[in-house]
Amino acid sequence: MTLTDNSLMPAIPEIADVPDITDPALAAALQQRIDRKTAPLGALGQVGDLARRLGAILGTAAPQLVQPQLVVFAADHGIAARGVSAYPSDVTWQMVHNFLAGGAAVSVLARQHGIALTVVDCGVRHDFDARAEPAPALVPSAGAPRLLHRKIAPGTQDSSAGPAMTAAQCTQALNNGIQLLKALPGNALLLGEMGIGNTSAASLLTARLGGVDVAEVTGAGTGLDAAGIARKTAVLRQALAANAGAAEPLAALAALGGFEIATMVGAVLQAAIERRVVLVDGFIASAAVLVAARLAPHVLQRCVLAHRSGERGHARLLTLLQAEPLLDLGLRLGEGSGAALAWPLLVSACAILNEMASFESAEVSDKQ
Amino acid sequence: MTLTDNSLMPAIPEIADVPDITDPALAAALQQRIDRKTAPLGALGQVGDLARRLGAILGTAAPQLVQPQLVVFAADHGIAARGVSAYPSDVTWQMVHNFLAGGAAVSVLARQHGIALTVVDCGVRHDFDARAEPAPALVPSAGAPRLLHRKIAPGTQDSSAGPAMTAAQCTQALNNGIQLLKALPGNALLLGEMGIGNTSAASLLTARLGGVDVAEVTGAGTGLDAAGIARKTAVLRQALAANAGAAEPLAALAALGGFEIATMVGAVLQAAIERRVVLVDGFIASAAVLVAARLAPHVLQRCVLAHRSGERGHARLLTLLQAEPLLDLGLRLGEGSGAALAWPLLVSACAILNEMASFESAEVSDKQ
Repeated sequence: MTLTDNSLMPAIPEIADVPDITDPALAAALQQRIDRKTAPLGALGQVGDLARRLGAILGTAAPQLVQPQLVVFAADHGIAARGVSAYPSDVTWQMVHNFLAGGAAVSVLARQHGIALTVVDCGVRHDFDARAEPAPALVPSAGAPRLLHRKIAPGTQDSSAGPAMTAAQCTQALNNGIQLLKALPGNALLLGEMGIGNTSAASLLTARLGGVDVAEVTGAGTGLDAAGIARKTAVLRQALAANAGAAEPLAALAALGGFEIATMVGAVLQAAIERRVVLVDGFIASAAVLVAARLAPHVLQRCVLAHRSGERGHARLLTLLQAEPLLDLGLRLGEGSGAALAWPLLVSACAILNEMASFESAEVSDKQ
Repeated sequence: MTLTDNSLMPAIPEIADVPDITDPALAAALQQRIDRKTAPLGALGQVGDLARRLGAILGTAAPQLVQPQLVVFAADHGIAARGVSAYPSDVTWQMVHNFLAGGAAVSVLARQHGIALTVVDCGVRHDFDARAEPAPALVPSAGAPRLLHRKIAPGTQDSSAGPAMTAAQCTQALNNGIQLLKALPGNALLLGEMGIGNTSAASLLTARLGGVDVAEVTGAGTGLDAAGIARKTAVLRQALAANAGAAEPLAALAALGGFEIATMVGAVLQAAIERRVVLVDGFIASAAVLVAARLAPHVLQRCVLAHRSGERGHARLLTLLQAEPLLDLGLRLGEGSGAALAWPLLVSACAILNEMASFESAEVSDKQ
C-alpha cells in the first residue's frame, strides 16, 4: 500500500517537521537549577528527571503547564466481530455518552485536576446528535466536556480479512488529528481513547512495527480469560497474514490500526511540531506514539509516559519506546485515566522548578 | 530499660485502643460498589484497592477526605556528630525556616494540593522564636505553614555511646505526638520529618525491631558515598552494641530513635485510634510506623504507604510492614514530599468511588 497515489493525501508531518530539540545549554541550565534546590543531589528522583524533560520540551528553564487538554479518541473496530473483546461494540458509544455525562473514570479525574476534556468520534458505530457539538471556536474547559464529530466511517473493516481502512480513510483520520490539535489551546496534550477491540489493533501495530511475536503483546483487554486470549491471538495472527505487505508505518496503521489510533497519530505529530507536552496513557496510546515515532523519531522527545498498564504487551511496548513510566498501578482502563492520574506529578515537577528555594536563597548549608 | 517506673509516663495507647476495624459487610459493600463502576472488573488496579482501603479506614462506602494535615516532625541527633550524614546538623533548623518560608519541596507540594502544613520542633538544636507559634486554637490551613514548639531537648544524645534519650524524654515525646494530633482537624495525616542523622535512627530501629542486619538497611541518606556508608554502618553497629538490652519497641525507640520519630509514633497511634488515614512517607516515617505497629499491630490497617524511597533499606522495611506503596519514583528527600506527591491519588480514589457511574446508572452494556 502506498499513499502517494491518493488525491486526499494531506501533508503528513515527517522527520523534518519534528526536529531534534536537544539543547545542551538549556539542559545544563535545567540541571544546574535542579541541583541547587534545597534537597540532596538527586533526591528528587524521577520528579527531577521529569522537570528536566518538561523544561526541554517547552524550551525554558521555567516551564509552566497551561490549559491541559485531555482528548479521548473513540472508534469501533471491525475485528471486534471476531470475538476479540469481552464486551460488545455498543459499549463504545455508550461510554462516549458516559464521558460527556461526567460519569466515566476519566471524567471524574479530569474534573479533579481541572483538565479540559474533549471526546472525538473518529469512527464510532453510532449516530450521535451532531447538534451536540459546540461552535468550533469554543475553547474546551474543565468540567464541560464536549464531543467533536470526526467520523471516518462507523467502524473499521475486519483486519483479519483485509485492511482495516483504505489509504484515503487513514490519511483523512491523520489529517483530522492534525487539524483538531491545531485548534486546541494550551501546551499539554493528554492522550485517551475508547474503542471496543482496540487492544487488538494496538497489539497488531506493536507486533508489526516492533518486530515482536504477536502472542508476546496480546493480553486480556477488557477481561478475556486464558481461552479468550488464545482465540484473540489466533485472530490476530490471521490479521497479520491478511495484511502481510503492510510493513511501513502508514501502511501498517491503515491495515491494522483503527480510526481513533490514526486520528491520535495525527494529533501526536502536530503536538510534537508545536512542542506541546504529550502525556501518553496506556497500551493503545503508546501504540499510536510508536507509529508516530516511526514516522518522526523526535516525537519521543515530547512524550512523557504516564504509567505502565496492566495490559500484557505494554511493558514490551514501553521498551520499544525507550520510556520509563511515572506510575505503575496495574491500571488497564484506558480512556486516558492513567494520564489524568499522572498529571499532578507534571504540575509538581514544574512547581518544584519554579517555586522551590535554592541553598543560596534559603541560606541552607550545603554538603560538608 | 523499662518505663513502668517513670512518673511521667503517659497513657501510651496499646492494642486495645487500636482495635481491629475489619468489617466484612463494609468490605463487601465497597467491593460491590467498585465492581459495578463503568470499568472492566479489576481495571482500576491499585486505585480500586486504595478506594477499598480508604473506605475501610473511614468506615464508610462513600469516603471523603477532609482537611488533610501534613506534619513535619523535626529534631536533631547526637549520632550526627559521628559523621553519619553528608550534611551538618545546622541544616535541620535551616530547613525548618525553609519550610515556614514556603521554599522547601514539601512547602511547594502542600501548597499545590491544598494540604495544611505544620512543622513541629520536637528537638531541634536551635532556639526558634517562640512567638512564631500561633494560638493553639488556630486551625492550620493550606498556604500558611505554622511552627509548633514541642522541643524535648536540643538534639538526642549520641546513641553510639548509650541511649539516645531517657525513658522520660521518650514518653514525653510520645505524649506530645498524641496531644498535637488530638488538636488537628480533618481525617487524614500525612507524615513528614526533618532531622540530619535520622536515616541512622531509622536504620537502627529497623534493624532492632525487624531482626535485620543493620548493613542491609543502611544507605546513603542525604548522599554518602560507599566509604561513607561503610563508616556509617560501623557507627550503627556500635549503637546497637551500646544499647543491646533495648529490645522492646518503646525501649528501642528511646535508645535508638529520635525525638521527631518518637513524637511521630505518638501521632500515628492517636491517628489510628481516631481512624484517620495515615499517609506514610519514606524511610524514617516508615520506621516510626514500624514502632507504632509493634505496640498496636492494627495501626497498619490505617496506613497507606505513599512511595518506595530510593534510600537503601526502605524496600526491606516495606516488607516488614507488608505494604505495597503507591509511587516508586526514586525519591529520597524526606520532609513528607513523597506523601504530598501521592496525595492526589487518594483524592482520586475517593472521587472514583463517589462520582463514577455504574453500568446501571450510565446504561452501559456489561460483559458478554
